[in-house]
Amino acid sequence: MIRIGVIGYGYWGPNLVRNFAELASARVTVVCDRRPERLALAARRYPGVRTTKDPVELIKDPSVDAVVIATPVFHHFELAMLAIHEGKHVLVEKPIASSSEQASQMIEEAARRRVVLMVDHTFVYTSAVRAMRDLVTKGDLGDIYYYDSVRINLGLFQHDVNVLWDLAVHDLSIMDYVLQKQPAAVSATGLAHVPGEPENIAYMTMFFDSPLIGHIHVNWLAPVKVRRTLLGGSRRMVVFDDLEASEKLRVYDKGISVNPSPENVYQLLVGYRTGDMWAPQIDLTEALSVEAAHFAECVARGGTPITDGESGLRVVRLLEAATESMVERGRLVSLNRAVVT
Amino acid sequence: MIRIGVIGYGYWGPNLVRNFAELASARVTVVCDRRPERLALAARRYPGVRTTKDPVELIKDPSVDAVVIATPVFHHFELAMLAIHEGKHVLVEKPIASSSEQASQMIEEAARRRVVLMVDHTFVYTSAVRAMRDLVTKGDLGDIYYYDSVRINLGLFQHDVNVLWDLAVHDLSIMDYVLQKQPAAVSATGLAHVPGEPENIAYMTMFFDSPLIGHIHVNWLAPVKVRRTLLGGSRRMVVFDDLEASEKLRVYDKGISVNPSPENVYQLLVGYRTGDMWAPQIDLTEALSVEAAHFAECVARGGTPITDGESGLRVVRLLEAATESMVERGRLVSLNRAVVT
Amino acid sequence: MIRIGVIGYGYWGPNLVRNFAELASARVTVVCDRRPERLALAARRYPGVRTTKDPVELIKDPSVDAVVIATPVFHHFELAMLAIHEGKHVLVEKPIASSSEQASQMIEEAARRRVVLMVDHTFVYTSAVRAMRDLVTKGDLGDIYYYDSVRINLGLFQHDVNVLWDLAVHDLSIMDYVLQKQPAAVSATGLAHVPGEPENIAYMTMFFDSPLIGHIHVNWLAPVKVRRTLLGGSRRMVVFDDLEASEKLRVYDKGISVNPSPENVYQLLVGYRTGDMWAPQIDLTEALSVEAAHFAECVARGGTPITDGESGLRVVRLLEAATESMVERGRLVSLNRAVVT
Amino acid sequence: MIRIGVIGYGYWGPNLVRNFAELASARVTVVCDRRPERLALAARRYPGVRTTKDPVELIKDPSVDAVVIATPVFHHFELAMLAIHEGKHVLVEKPIASSSEQASQMIEEAARRRVVLMVDHTFVYTSAVRAMRDLVTKGDLGDIYYYDSVRINLGLFQHDVNVLWDLAVHDLSIMDYVLQKQPAAVSATGLAHVPGEPENIAYMTMFFDSPLIGHIHVNWLAPVKVRRTLLGGSRRMVVFDDLEASEKLRVYDKGISVNPSPENVYQLLVGYRTGDMWAPQIDLTEALSVEAAHFAECVARGGTPITDGESGLRVVRLLEAATESMVERGRLVSLNRAVVT
Repeated sequence: MIRIGVIGYGYWGPNLVRNFAELASARVTVVCDRRPERLALAARRYPGVRTTKDPVELIKDPSVDAVVIATPVFHHFELAMLAIHEGKHVLVEKPIASSSEQASQMIEEAARRRVVLMVDHTFVYTSAVRAMRDLVTKGDLGDIYYYDSVRINLGLFQHDVNVLWDLAVHDLSIMDYVLQKQPAAVSATGLAHVPGEPENIAYMTMFFDSPLIGHIHVNWLAPVKVRRTLLGGSRRMVVFDDLEASEKLRVYDKGISVNPSPENVYQLLVGYRTGDMWAPQIDLTEALSVEAAHFAECVARGGTPITDGESGLRVVRLLEAATESMVERGRLVSLNRAVVT
Repeated sequence: MIRIGVIGYGYWGPNLVRNFAELASARVTVVCDRRPERLALAARRYPGVRTTKDPVELIKDPSVDAVVIATPVFHHFELAMLAIHEGKHVLVEKPIASSSEQASQMIEEAARRRVVLMVDHTFVYTSAVRAMRDLVTKGDLGDIYYYDSVRINLGLFQHDVNVLWDLAVHDLSIMDYVLQKQPAAVSATGLAHVPGEPENIAYMTMFFDSPLIGHIHVNWLAPVKVRRTLLGGSRRMVVFDDLEASEKLRVYDKGISVNPSPENVYQLLVGYRTGDMWAPQIDLTEALSVEAAHFAECVARGGTPITDGESGLRVVRLLEAATESMVERGRLVSLNRAVVT
Repeated sequence: MIRIGVIGYGYWGPNLVRNFAELASARVTVVCDRRPERLALAARRYPGVRTTKDPVELIKDPSVDAVVIATPVFHHFELAMLAIHEGKHVLVEKPIASSSEQASQMIEEAARRRVVLMVDHTFVYTSAVRAMRDLVTKGDLGDIYYYDSVRINLGLFQHDVNVLWDLAVHDLSIMDYVLQKQPAAVSATGLAHVPGEPENIAYMTMFFDSPLIGHIHVNWLAPVKVRRTLLGGSRRMVVFDDLEASEKLRVYDKGISVNPSPENVYQLLVGYRTGDMWAPQIDLTEALSVEAAHFAECVARGGTPITDGESGLRVVRLLEAATESMVERGRLVSLNRAVVT
Repeated sequence: MIRIGVIGYGYWGPNLVRNFAELASARVTVVCDRRPERLALAARRYPGVRTTKDPVELIKDPSVDAVVIATPVFHHFELAMLAIHEGKHVLVEKPIASSSEQASQMIEEAARRRVVLMVDHTFVYTSAVRAMRDLVTKGDLGDIYYYDSVRINLGLFQHDVNVLWDLAVHDLSIMDYVLQKQPAAVSATGLAHVPGEPENIAYMTMFFDSPLIGHIHVNWLAPVKVRRTLLGGSRRMVVFDDLEASEKLRVYDKGISVNPSPENVYQLLVGYRTGDMWAPQIDLTEALSVEAAHFAECVARGGTPITDGESGLRVVRLLEAATESMVERGRLVSLNRAVVT
């Protein structure tokens, strides 16, 4: 029975508490938040759970085996490092840290203290994303040509991070898991419409060492909600629409066939294949319950999480590079940088 | 009664012939195509129309007052210049020419010969696009924040032009007409998946002199067809979905309100307004019939077309800049907007 | 502070408990279910709540002011009558009872004991349904021509009631509230595909004393989920799609205009008006929380609920008539029957 | 080369003329309409075609081998009988005639004169409908449980026929072809909202000799256009949405499994299977071109059309029965299926 302390009971914290509370292999023992009204709410819902305003108290509490950090991103590093120093296992809300430097230190420290460090890349634990990865791994899609994702809505403006760190982080974590390849360079553009605030609309292109291109469009100021990813391959193509109630994933047996001998300029080099569409049945289990169970199991058995510190680091590196590029209006930023060791 | 000669009876030419044929103020007298089977088809459908394989013959034909050019883009300049020299009015398929240099010469020559030069930016003649322009002009949307367009499908690969010249040209012509502002700089990315062929997927960001950003995503290799434009303003936001049968335009009374005094880091600077959605009734008259009538009227009365040579030139400048940027993976390309004189 | 006892902690009971638990004006004191595992679940979630397997114990418990009945329908009458006899206020899951005879007795008895009797017609407490009623009441739709509803999905087959009693009950309660008129006669058809089981697909037409027609299609065996109501009026028409995330209600400024003097058989008598579409913003507050607060207030202040026993009776009368008609393959069943007194 | 005369150049006639004109095996020689402006339009589009206001002249014209009748339904019988008497092959717009008596006489007479009699049940010639029939024929859907169709929009009010004869005729012809079974009895309801005019909204249930139910909802006064058919089987279920651009047909691997031994009242008798969805590629060839070619081939080779007079008669019988039932508010009308001989 893993005893969990959760820091942060704002927007996402309650979901984490609820899912760990329903787990047979774990128990939430302490919840921490700076706001008394949030603690009161937690206490009302979970009468057996202790509450505290002091995260250090929670971290040092001997009844806590593992610390779940669901605070704004700029507290992640400090709280996670403290917890790791105390020998506690750590699950950190996405993105794992404010910089790749911080993420690298967290990884090192967790390795040294032999504790589990996991990042809450929730989508990786959905059946739809796992099915996409399977399609790629088995070669059903052929060579992967592009990964294109749109994640827009009328959303809460953050003022400590730009929209990439808030929304694109989801797409980057999915892309990292599905493609199993890392981009070599990034070009990003974006704009802040509120003076003094971070960018609220952004576009990010990723280049790879193969003929593969990635693109992410995120926007806090869209009139409609869109959550759609296109994954194009040489053999098949996938549309993942997370707002679809049942058919979230559609696999299209469509593509091109290269015709090597065109006779003249009016003829086309490329032929088309269009075939059936197929929507595999997707298990609709809440991703966070799968993820909570996975964390508890890694802690209990000492395993490496699917979304370990390294995956958190890879995503943060992309966010850093994209932010750097965005400031310079699309300047190409290379990712061929040595990992901090 | 304007007498029309149409060069090119391939994909788009038949639509032009049909719309001019149904016009009371015009008559199609000659159709030209290099392919006998296309001419046979035209002859079967329009028994009274002469056909020829020779575009020069058509251009010089005294029974032709105006020449409509619906050939691949690399013939536009040569054919249009010849027609203008002969004193013929000209309607050119989009994009107007293969380069801004060519477009500038066409504009100059048409001015010198006092003939009408019009480019077939078809979407400008749709009710939906005109309604969007009205919303902008009247200030109903407030300050314009972004213009975001997606135009993707499993489409014919061109091998003489990249996907921007084939598809983004539509979005650029719409944006030019709706925003009535020109971008100051462009950053574009893209990829060719067939070796030796032009880019089949592309992303293009446009920066303006105001806090406005434009973005276009075009793709010949998408499993689904999307034709959707988001137009975000400080007061209202618009979704233009050209695949909707009836409600192509939706106006959302949504936006943000800046809240100047946040107390602490957990509070948000920006508030939200969400209100009703409204879909104005859109006239579904075929755009090409409106456009054909407009061309005939400009010819008859000597007016300047809405989509004149200058609008064609502005679009081509953006396509050139984007292609230049795309080759260098997003390098910012400034738009030197001095017209060649 | 109203003290609530909830009988039945199966599918719907947990929602009732949760919403009463979050109410400031009420407190859930006892939960009853026959299944120990359901009681264990309730106890785990609400440590302060007593649990019992005996509904009579709950009803007689002096710490219970009001009884909420969320059992299968054939227990409603017995439990409600017992509670009313004990002077307890009662909220009954829909449909209010298994027969109009039972519903009438419940209404009488509640009046005699001066307790509140309310039926859980949940949809009546949604903003979308209330907005529809407002449109009707204000005359914005003109004369109401038809009410057409489809409620289908791959759903749980009940074996104690047919699909009308399970699904059409929602539509009938909405229709009753929105139209504020009762049908004069019913014709229904349907079929049972599992031998010995009740009808799993049904169609029900309602005739009124005015030129208004109602129709409901319900189906437990549909491959897709549909929740859509069309409300046609002489001035405007409404589409209520409960599966839409944000724009649940769309008001179309469309209709017909009668043209009294057609000249010949080829001319049409009826003209069309098509105008804008408008989607009013709908508050997305959970209906059950509004309903729970309304029940608590009726109990506290002695008011008559919007969904009182009479509305429950009217709906049950329609279900009885439709079931009777369905057995005889659409035979018209009149509703001009004296209320049991 | 079959020479075709077309009577009626209003709404549907031009489509028939166009499709026969593009056929290699046929030629349109004469077009007839009472309205000079319609004939002028036909003459402008097809300079080689003769025009006449007199249908008898067209029918007797020796340059006409086959007569296509696209007039209002009350002229079908008279014109078709005249053409058959003259030994001309006949293709009649749907419905084949105003009564089953007329249809029977047409069938008899065509048999006697050995000419082809075909009814224009256009949907039967679409790939989607043919694919549905194949699924039924091959047993892929298992036992067929229900056929449910909705065909509504803001449509032209007819004043010579009710909405069933105008719209349900499509669904009945599709159902006849797909199910290959005829209903045993009909119950229909409906209403006319314009005094003195025929019913503009109607619902029609069909009972079969097996546990199969059919239902059709048609409406001329709906704010939205819907063209959707559900076909439920014991093994799989199909949704045919004719407004979908590409995936018109979706096959759901969903259904029920009967569980014979429920222990108590809370347990369910019926289990569920939910699996993948599959959208077979549908050829989008215009149905009318397939149909025109089929008619020409039947004429040339003396074959029996897929949509022969008998299929027209079966559909008219259902329309008659439904209209009879509708007048009496759902009274069950049995179908006496002995063919008039």
